[in-house]
Amino acid sequence: MSAIESLRGRMAELADLAAIEMLANWDQLVMMPAEGAGARAQQLGTIALLTHERATSAEIGEWLQEIDAALDIPGGHAAGAVLDELDRDVVRLARRDWERARRVPDALAAELAQASAAGHESWRAARESDDFSAFAPALARNVELARAYAECVAEDGQGLYEALLGDFDFGLRTEELRRVFGALGERLPALMADARVHSPRRELEVPVEAQQAAVAGTLRRLGVDDASWRVDLSAHPFSSSIARRDLRVTTRYSDGQVESLLSSLHEYGHALYERQIDAALERTNLGRGTSMSVHESQSKLWENHVARSPAFAEVLAVELGAGGFQVAPGELHAALVGVEPSPVRVSADPLTYPLHIVVRFELELALIEGDLAVADLPDAWREGMRRLLGIEVPSDALGCLQDVHWSEGYFGYFPSYALGCLIAAQLWESIEAELGSREEDLRRGEVASVQAWLGEHVHRHGRRLDTVALVEQATGRGLEIDPFLRYVEPLAGR
Amino acid sequence: MSAIESLRGRMAELADLAAIEMLANWDQLVMMPAEGAGARAQQLGTIALLTHERATSAEIGEWLQEIDAALDIPGGHAAGAVLDELDRDVVRLARRDWERARRVPDALAAELAQASAAGHESWRAARESDDFSAFAPALARNVELARAYAECVAEDGQGLYEALLGDFDFGLRTEELRRVFGALGERLPALMADARVHSPRRELEVPVEAQQAAVAGTLRRLGVDDASWRVDLSAHPFSSSIARRDLRVTTRYSDGQVESLLSSLHEYGHALYERQIDAALERTNLGRGTSMSVHESQSKLWENHVARSPAFAEVLAVELGAGGFQVAPGELHAALVGVEPSPVRVSADPLTYPLHIVVRFELELALIEGDLAVADLPDAWREGMRRLLGIEVPSDALGCLQDVHWSEGYFGYFPSYALGCLIAAQLWESIEAELGSREEDLRRGEVASVQAWLGEHVHRHGRRLDTVALVEQATGRGLEIDPFLRYVEPLAGR
Repeated sequence: MSAIESLRGRMAELADLAAIEMLANWDQLVMMPAEGAGARAQQLGTIALLTHERATSAEIGEWLQEIDAALDIPGGHAAGAVLDELDRDVVRLARRDWERARRVPDALAAELAQASAAGHESWRAARESDDFSAFAPALARNVELARAYAECVAEDGQGLYEALLGDFDFGLRTEELRRVFGALGERLPALMADARVHSPRRELEVPVEAQQAAVAGTLRRLGVDDASWRVDLSAHPFSSSIARRDLRVTTRYSDGQVESLLSSLHEYGHALYERQIDAALERTNLGRGTSMSVHESQSKLWENHVARSPAFAEVLAVELGAGGFQVAPGELHAALVGVEPSPVRVSADPLTYPLHIVVRFELELALIEGDLAVADLPDAWREGMRRLLGIEVPSDALGCLQDVHWSEGYFGYFPSYALGCLIAAQLWESIEAELGSREEDLRRGEVASVQAWLGEHVHRHGRRLDTVALVEQATGRGLEIDPFLRYVEPLAGR
Repeated sequence: MSAIESLRGRMAELADLAAIEMLANWDQLVMMPAEGAGARAQQLGTIALLTHERATSAEIGEWLQEIDAALDIPGGHAAGAVLDELDRDVVRLARRDWERARRVPDALAAELAQASAAGHESWRAARESDDFSAFAPALARNVELARAYAECVAEDGQGLYEALLGDFDFGLRTEELRRVFGALGERLPALMADARVHSPRRELEVPVEAQQAAVAGTLRRLGVDDASWRVDLSAHPFSSSIARRDLRVTTRYSDGQVESLLSSLHEYGHALYERQIDAALERTNLGRGTSMSVHESQSKLWENHVARSPAFAEVLAVELGAGGFQVAPGELHAALVGVEPSPVRVSADPLTYPLHIVVRFELELALIEGDLAVADLPDAWREGMRRLLGIEVPSDALGCLQDVHWSEGYFGYFPSYALGCLIAAQLWESIEAELGSREEDLRRGEVASVQAWLGEHVHRHGRRLDTVALVEQATGRGLEIDPFLRYVEPLAGR
């Protein structure tokens, strides 16, 4: 077997292991009897260990060297060594992933995994009792290990935080985030103040049965069929792409809320991305979404630009009506976009949502770069929420303890949530610039042109283009905040 | 890490991989969208390859050698090398499994897997068109490969068929099967003739809703709770033990049939076995049911001796009544045990069921030992069914094409179905000899004493005792047919 064949075989194996891990996680959150949790943790641990071993093994390095050598030899193509474009990308990403993973000593990887699990448990208890001090030691440990990890994977001259970003959004620069999030922090608060008056938060009492009918009917319009999709319930909505034709989204229903309409389209956007990746990338190391922020752009596009559009509110109103709940589209739209700053990220409106991320970005950057002590986090959080959202945080449980990410050692993950909002807006403007306003289509629930545009310009590439390159390729411009500002300005009456 | 620790680590890994494979199979049959099948086949293939590689790796041999050496050295215990009884069994079974697996060349293992998949496809098409000749080449290939496989794994002086038996029931002798099945073939037909008159087949028209209520209510009485069990629907009932506290059984409902009452208790029996294995064996190579026939004895015990008892019919009638279907216990019992020979194994009554297996045993033994050509199988099948069940087979689709096993290359598997009936009867007699008649308990739906007896005498041992040793330990006697005959004699009015 040639080196490229061996490499492709290993990549296929790793893709299968990732799919199986995703399945085991999906099962745990959707199907598993509760008492199976202990055994499941061990099963997942075994998959993770095997994956680590197979992804970092010395053979991969040997195959890469052989491929290099063959390419260097004049006439190397005679040995079948000339790679097509796809294989060149397979090799490029395999080298990047392998080298990055090899820089982390096994002992540190094990420590990270243990601290992540312990941190999660500590956080759960601390949040429940609203006691940050109980969580502080675990968080300090996670920060310390994240810094050690960053030292291992950092490229020459790269700061520690930027090194961590690479796990979620390869190639993203800390400076770029400072620029973008700094501008958001300057521009959004004033818009928020106007939007609270112009588009105040509205409650809509929608019974669960009507929500269920509307979610099912709306997803059906978007192409969610029984042959290649599942839609289930879970405590927190999420999306699992077990395979291109085995896509699973979950949602949840609370009486009198409309979150399910938004979250089901959000998760649909994640799944559609994976579904439309070029079939030729399946079971390679290129066959998944390229980054957290591009993934989030796909969910936010369907949440913000479809589900929250005045036009699509007409479709949602029809579907709620079929479920026995009559509502005027304008009233429904108002409930889906109403602006009001609040302490909790996951229930934030479309305008204030990125400000929650700006707060987190500033704080995690300072934690990692050594400019903020863990003990000072709660006060710094309060200060940030006051400055950017103008609100007082009522408790740490609804403050710096609300999110799970840091407890598991994920630093550099949060930015993707806000970048997703920005990229979604930028892509949406490109779609409408190219295809014309989508308003009439959305009013009729027709989304084929949007699906096709995203497939062509975003989805099919898989990991072949990194975040910024993908945005440039799809929109002709670098990462911008103006499209997002133009998206929220109408909420502020501008 | 010591050799025994390394060995135990590998066994834990293999146990986790087996659980994950079981989960992926369960998901495919119960939850997966149909179009996920292609990707799932590849994911399962990757698990199988990884499992094979890890189960047959040279390291295992090195660890076993190190353990041997340490045990040989006087004072070896100083190095922690003296093993307790459990570890001695871990080592004994690890050696047996490893040596057996290592005898099969990778190329042959790959051929077997390919021929199994191809045979299954060929069989599906041939059964659909009732055309045995279309399946004959694939079957001939499976027979040929099974013989080659048997040559590899056979112990000195062992026949090829007996070598194959070892995959399903280690230690079982072909001679023993000839004796037992020969006796069944002599004794059962006469009983069948009387039973057709004394206990004729009765139809009972039970609506699906009543069956569902009765299955749910009955399983609840047996301890099936939501915290550690799932009960789902699937095309064919089966049981998956993902972990001791993550047990999943499936059933199916056909309007107007009572199969669901029997099959749900059958699958419960399989799951209860795995649930009650000693917790100390979890994630070792001993922590699962010891053989196919003992597993089948556990399902058959709950199907034949509980669900089909006159006493438990009172419980089932109450549960059906709660589901809105009123039936007298006697009438229900008659429908659950009625005897009538028919061509199809899976719907056979409790008396004729083992005769279906005797036919298959004779034929697969002859195929493997070279005494029957594949082309002659359909006629030999008809002859066997005529001789043992007294019926004419209407077609090959309802004859030698009805079962999947041979198409996938499983020869030596069928006997476990009949052995399960025999062992169940033998265990049930031991239970009643020791604890007294269970009739009053069953009438009230109380099964705790039966569960406890099985846990103590059968389940807790896991793989530490092989089939025959386990039967001897639990019942004080070798494998017998008389208990089974005594179980069916009342059906014949004796």
